[in-house]
Amino acid sequence: MTTATLSLTELTAAATSAAKIAAAASDAERAGWLTAVADALDDNAAELVEIADSETSLGTTRLTGEVARTSGQLRLFARVITEGSYLEAIIDHADPSATPPRPDLRRILRPIGPVAVFSASNFPFAFSVAGGDTASALAVGCSVIVKAHSGHLRLSGRTAEIVAEALRGAGAPEGIFALVHGRDVGTALVQDPAIKAVGFTGSIPGGRALFDLATSRPDPIPFYGELGSLNPVVITAAALRARTGELAAGLAGSFTLGAGQFCTKPGLVFVPAGTQFAAEVAAASKDKPALGMLTSRIAEAYPDGLRSFASVDGVDVVSGSVDQDAAAHGAAPVVFSTTAAKVLERPEQLLEECFGPTTILIEYADRDQLSAALAKVPGSLTATLHAQPGEDIAGLVEQLSGLAGRVLFEGWPTGVAVNWAQQHGGPYPATTSLFTSVGATAVRRFQRPVAYQDASEDVLHPALREGNPLGIPRRVDGELRLP
Amino acid sequence: MTTATLSLTELTAAATSAAKIAAAASDAERAGWLTAVADALDDNAAELVEIADSETSLGTTRLTGEVARTSGQLRLFARVITEGSYLEAIIDHADPSATPPRPDLRRILRPIGPVAVFSASNFPFAFSVAGGDTASALAVGCSVIVKAHSGHLRLSGRTAEIVAEALRGAGAPEGIFALVHGRDVGTALVQDPAIKAVGFTGSIPGGRALFDLATSRPDPIPFYGELGSLNPVVITAAALRARTGELAAGLAGSFTLGAGQFCTKPGLVFVPAGTQFAAEVAAASKDKPALGMLTSRIAEAYPDGLRSFASVDGVDVVSGSVDQDAAAHGAAPVVFSTTAAKVLERPEQLLEECFGPTTILIEYADRDQLSAALAKVPGSLTATLHAQPGEDIAGLVEQLSGLAGRVLFEGWPTGVAVNWAQQHGGPYPATTSLFTSVGATAVRRFQRPVAYQDASEDVLHPALREGNPLGIPRRVDGELRLP
Repeated sequence: MTTATLSLTELTAAATSAAKIAAAASDAERAGWLTAVADALDDNAAELVEIADSETSLGTTRLTGEVARTSGQLRLFARVITEGSYLEAIIDHADPSATPPRPDLRRILRPIGPVAVFSASNFPFAFSVAGGDTASALAVGCSVIVKAHSGHLRLSGRTAEIVAEALRGAGAPEGIFALVHGRDVGTALVQDPAIKAVGFTGSIPGGRALFDLATSRPDPIPFYGELGSLNPVVITAAALRARTGELAAGLAGSFTLGAGQFCTKPGLVFVPAGTQFAAEVAAASKDKPALGMLTSRIAEAYPDGLRSFASVDGVDVVSGSVDQDAAAHGAAPVVFSTTAAKVLERPEQLLEECFGPTTILIEYADRDQLSAALAKVPGSLTATLHAQPGEDIAGLVEQLSGLAGRVLFEGWPTGVAVNWAQQHGGPYPATTSLFTSVGATAVRRFQRPVAYQDASEDVLHPALREGNPLGIPRRVDGELRLP
Repeated sequence: MTTATLSLTELTAAATSAAKIAAAASDAERAGWLTAVADALDDNAAELVEIADSETSLGTTRLTGEVARTSGQLRLFARVITEGSYLEAIIDHADPSATPPRPDLRRILRPIGPVAVFSASNFPFAFSVAGGDTASALAVGCSVIVKAHSGHLRLSGRTAEIVAEALRGAGAPEGIFALVHGRDVGTALVQDPAIKAVGFTGSIPGGRALFDLATSRPDPIPFYGELGSLNPVVITAAALRARTGELAAGLAGSFTLGAGQFCTKPGLVFVPAGTQFAAEVAAASKDKPALGMLTSRIAEAYPDGLRSFASVDGVDVVSGSVDQDAAAHGAAPVVFSTTAAKVLERPEQLLEECFGPTTILIEYADRDQLSAALAKVPGSLTATLHAQPGEDIAGLVEQLSGLAGRVLFEGWPTGVAVNWAQQHGGPYPATTSLFTSVGATAVRRFQRPVAYQDASEDVLHPALREGNPLGIPRRVDGELRLP
């Protein structure tokens, strides 16, 4: 499972062989592999956090929490495959009396094969080498080749060593997991015939370029990209009247969290016109410290993004300074304000993601103008609504549901719970697929359905055998049955 | 719901409005729409079959069966949405004591929006105007714009009238369904910002061209294409010894069915070398009548395909004539034979689909050679194995599972049951997605997940409300619960 000495051809050949073994392994075996990786991450958390902090400036508190989230994620997927619904086993018994006669037909989801995973800059654990893409692919019986992110190479290497050793110790096949480096190798991976799906978390331009490669292959493969998100927030007049201070403090905490480098950072906040909310947010933000960013490239891009907003006529800087040297002194928060009318006039300039601790307050005159401006907002991971009980918000909720994969009420989007119901994905460009990259249903990305017609018991996957030997939920003759 | 007088812009605007209403309709309402369409098709079957036969030459027996299959398909989807599992409702209750505290999170699948459907030439009912793509999209609350197939325009128009009238009568919104004509309009539809997904059944070149358009949009959309399939069959030596006559008769019946114009036609048959099977198949095929093909273009292409096979050195014509005028006299069956060694040498020439009543027998020397040749076969809808009880076929079954979406035993692939477990799809080029276009799970293609965080009961979809008012299966706090 080492990588440095193998060519890409050797790695993908090993991944192909390993995928066959992993596909034949039992759910209990694969759950054991995931648990071993989780335990190894927890056991080595102190060392890993130290390396991660030196490379990403994210701080040890956040990074320690992220390791726990990452090992927890691996354990969730172990529970998911042990429960067994993820196989979506469906059995239709034969009906020789039907016209035409119906055969015995049994469907199951099988692993798709070797998966390429592109790790993210901003979550060096949870969306990286041993993150959700890797965990969900391994869970269902795929092998994984991870492209390390250049922003945390030392951490990637050390994590990969720990993962590989844990997998080996738990009995996983040689070749089940590998780490590669470099943009060219990543590009080659997406085009490699052995690779059957790609998981990606990163920028819109980078993700779109790889998506285009994946879909233009002679045999296109699914590209599960999480690319970017503005995460609009809507505050109603009633909510603002009832709790303006709380909202200002909550927003300031959320958009500056982790130096504003969350893919769920609230980047657009729609507020009623004619209020003092901008001043409240400015007050709540002004003492937030400047924080080091993930990489010098990201730090250099931040003021460029700020200046781009500030250059638009009708956009005001409410707090903070556009002219800052984030690479030298850390990224300091900046709050902008403008109007919904301006957004309608210049959507392409104002509806751009700016990675860093900044957000734009957008004043709307009424519900119609709000709705018109929201209609210009590109697909997002999240959309948030702050309203008061009793307000008529049904139409707004429906519009936000069409815009984002997760709709939040009375909260802030930066936290992403790792559980059964999570949806971390949304209309393009938030993601390039109809799936989630976080939560139990993320496994479905790396599975493909196969139906077996009139197969004898001995060739059927145990999940499809007559007596339900695995004891899993199945649909039999149209009826969902619990074990 | 008429189409002739509206521009594409007007049609897509109407489809967008209708999709909002359909998304808000209850499952019972939409089940009513589907049932009304099914009833209307059955009520008008005689007239429709007559038109269809005049346009497709498929014969009234087959076409009458296909109408029944199509109305049955609509009724299956009505049952699927009534049962409710298709919503994949997942509820994770809040856990304030967790670190970090967990919000209340509830996930459901929502309709994706207006869908474009490209109908097929070879199934003028089941994969056409009121076919599986239309039915599954309407079922989940999408609107549908169907591109008629030029091979049966009169039938498409009449079917669309019946569908539109039934939908109107059942209370479905104006704009929920429309029919359009022409290649240029089809191309424009795939690129129209209002269209959120495409269902397609047709040729590899045509499907790939539209897939490329769908994925190269500024906002790529899912393209569910069913493009083509060789449907390999493997016969073991033991099976051949035990039932050679039955196998020859079964194969002859399957590859000539409907003039060999099924997407599941067995186009490649791997048989042990050194047997008399070719002679048996020749005998079983020689009295099969020449049948009119779907269109003159298809009929003209058939002899071209035959000549292409015949031109390969080492390929023998076992029965029938390569030089035939299928457009004038119908398509007569032709059986070829060659060796697995030849397939390994010239895969690009021999592993081409030829639409029509022809198949190639491929003699293999041993299991290793069989496996090597199978490895060259492109992704298929089906793969069939004929073996005897007690034979060691596990490796072969696993290889066939990787090659196709449906693996059959002791049967022939041309029948496709419409039920809960069906999988009609496979690795590219069989399909361009990981989904099926037939069977209950086809609905998933036109849904997207949305999670609601800390939402109050009154804004939640009924499927996600605390008391389970719809009485559907749901996963609550990780546990699958039946109503």
